[in-house]
Amino acid sequence: MQKVNSTPVSELGEFGLIEELTKGIKILNPETIFGVGDDAAVLDYQDKKILVTTDLLVEGIHFNLIYTPLKHLGYKSVVVNLSDICAMNGIPKQVTVSIAISSKFSVEALTEFYDGVKFACKKYNVDLIGGDTSSSLTGFLISVTAIGEAGENDIVYRGGAKPTDLICVSGNLGGAYMGLQLLEREKNIFTENPGVQPDLSGYDYILERQLKPEPRLDIIESLKVAGIKPTAMIDISDGLSSELIHICKNSQIGCRIYSERIPIDVTTCEMAKEFNMAAETAALNGGEDYELLFTVSIKDYEKVKSIKDVSIIGNVTDITDGLNLVSPDGNLIQITAQGWNAIK
Amino acid sequence: MQKVNSTPVSELGEFGLIEELTKGIKILNPETIFGVGDDAAVLDYQDKKILVTTDLLVEGIHFNLIYTPLKHLGYKSVVVNLSDICAMNGIPKQVTVSIAISSKFSVEALTEFYDGVKFACKKYNVDLIGGDTSSSLTGFLISVTAIGEAGENDIVYRGGAKPTDLICVSGNLGGAYMGLQLLEREKNIFTENPGVQPDLSGYDYILERQLKPEPRLDIIESLKVAGIKPTAMIDISDGLSSELIHICKNSQIGCRIYSERIPIDVTTCEMAKEFNMAAETAALNGGEDYELLFTVSIKDYEKVKSIKDVSIIGNVTDITDGLNLVSPDGNLIQITAQGWNAIK
Repeated sequence: MQKVNSTPVSELGEFGLIEELTKGIKILNPETIFGVGDDAAVLDYQDKKILVTTDLLVEGIHFNLIYTPLKHLGYKSVVVNLSDICAMNGIPKQVTVSIAISSKFSVEALTEFYDGVKFACKKYNVDLIGGDTSSSLTGFLISVTAIGEAGENDIVYRGGAKPTDLICVSGNLGGAYMGLQLLEREKNIFTENPGVQPDLSGYDYILERQLKPEPRLDIIESLKVAGIKPTAMIDISDGLSSELIHICKNSQIGCRIYSERIPIDVTTCEMAKEFNMAAETAALNGGEDYELLFTVSIKDYEKVKSIKDVSIIGNVTDITDGLNLVSPDGNLIQITAQGWNAIK
Repeated sequence: MQKVNSTPVSELGEFGLIEELTKGIKILNPETIFGVGDDAAVLDYQDKKILVTTDLLVEGIHFNLIYTPLKHLGYKSVVVNLSDICAMNGIPKQVTVSIAISSKFSVEALTEFYDGVKFACKKYNVDLIGGDTSSSLTGFLISVTAIGEAGENDIVYRGGAKPTDLICVSGNLGGAYMGLQLLEREKNIFTENPGVQPDLSGYDYILERQLKPEPRLDIIESLKVAGIKPTAMIDISDGLSSELIHICKNSQIGCRIYSERIPIDVTTCEMAKEFNMAAETAALNGGEDYELLFTVSIKDYEKVKSIKDVSIIGNVTDITDGLNLVSPDGNLIQITAQGWNAIK
């Protein structure tokens, strides 16, 4: 049997722990002048605009450590923030990562978590420039702030969509939600019958969608290459419906999206079938896909149509038309927010 | 009897809550292009360098809601981060504030907290540009990131102190620690005898030091006016000993500070006496004073001596001399870290 080391965090103390977790960090971006190790990090963005976003991940609310590997959790904590920078049409450059941990965590467990953080940073060319570590009387809590850049004229807000614009999404939707349902189901089976091993085979794709999402920096790059600046953009963290409502509210517009055009992966469909639910519901109301939802001018139709992994799912209408989903038989269904809500 | 409203947070939902808490926010700085309300905030620092710092405040670890008014807590959460920007010789410009709350919190309680956040922002001319809100299964948790600016040649790191430099501190030390001891004592008395009202009269000063610290932006300004650029600087969050160790380690120096020169307020001394402890111990090892500890070249002696509310407490020595406290009778005592540790 493999011996797993378990060093209590108290053995290192706060500063020792920080040293251990941040060792080997190399600065990747010229915009990062000074990273970890002083009262504040020092950045230099010259003539670029600076984008700042922040997200909390709370144990028992956003993740369950029973089925979330710590390395994946570290990776995901960074990625969900990079996704917000992408949603502004920007390039992420730095992150700070703060954690509050209960005493049950060992140095080795935290190292796992930071391995995931560092892996995401390396993959997306982002510098880890700071953070804070604290005890927590109960669960694990993670707070990440991401900083990125964009040229003044490149920034895309939620409020710029205009009637006749095309509504597009990257990738496919609902997978992360179905992955979560699968993990929850297997957890419950295991809790009731600890002898039964979880059956997750054949569902790698949706599990990865849930446990290891990716920010769509590649789509930002493709749009740039195609010469398209979206008129509005948001990342899909709470479900397509919820994000559509944000864009419509901020842009003062209505929308019409076509049920049949919503991209859904075959594994998502199969899993939804097992759960006796419509895959479309997972796509509309399930969160955490971290795909991009954006609108482009209709004159960019030819350009956007040829971008790989982007689907045109509908169009912007006048605000008086409201938010509508067109069903396969042509019926209009009003879109309401049933997405994920962190405050219950 | 006054009726206190108590609206459950669930009544507003996440987005309603954010709207409620961020209403009335006006952008104060030209560096803030876009604040709350999109995937990320947008900033413009032109030719200035950007400073970024972040801190967690965890219920039961950093604060006790039994004796911490929520408005004070909101204020303090912002201030401790602004203090880190000051410690780089910078000017704070923006903050993000994220909170995780248990269901016991009402909208009114959170509004109190945000009133404190907004009050600190207004007082120190800082924009609240974003954040995140989430449920927590247990305690209240706050994560703040502060962003500020400094000219390239103005930034002061921890690592620039040289032998013969003077060691200075602003304000006085140990007060926040003694304030905490007083609050803890009265809490314990109240817990044992709920009929006995806490006796806090005459101790307003140390209570304010604990509950409502201030960042020493005024000292940063005074140093600028006097034409002094410190060689190293840090803010005193964990106690003088701990911060001296940071500066000595980063600068590769030793130090000698004189016990009698450590500034301690009379109220701190009185409270220490009541607790049968040396006030000097509170100054050396008690945290949260948020004063500035800095070193200046000996040629700036005349200039620094005349700055109000700054004390010269010793001088930098060669690294081989170690870190020493000189007692009133001339004995050398080695300085070790016994300061506050967030990881226990």
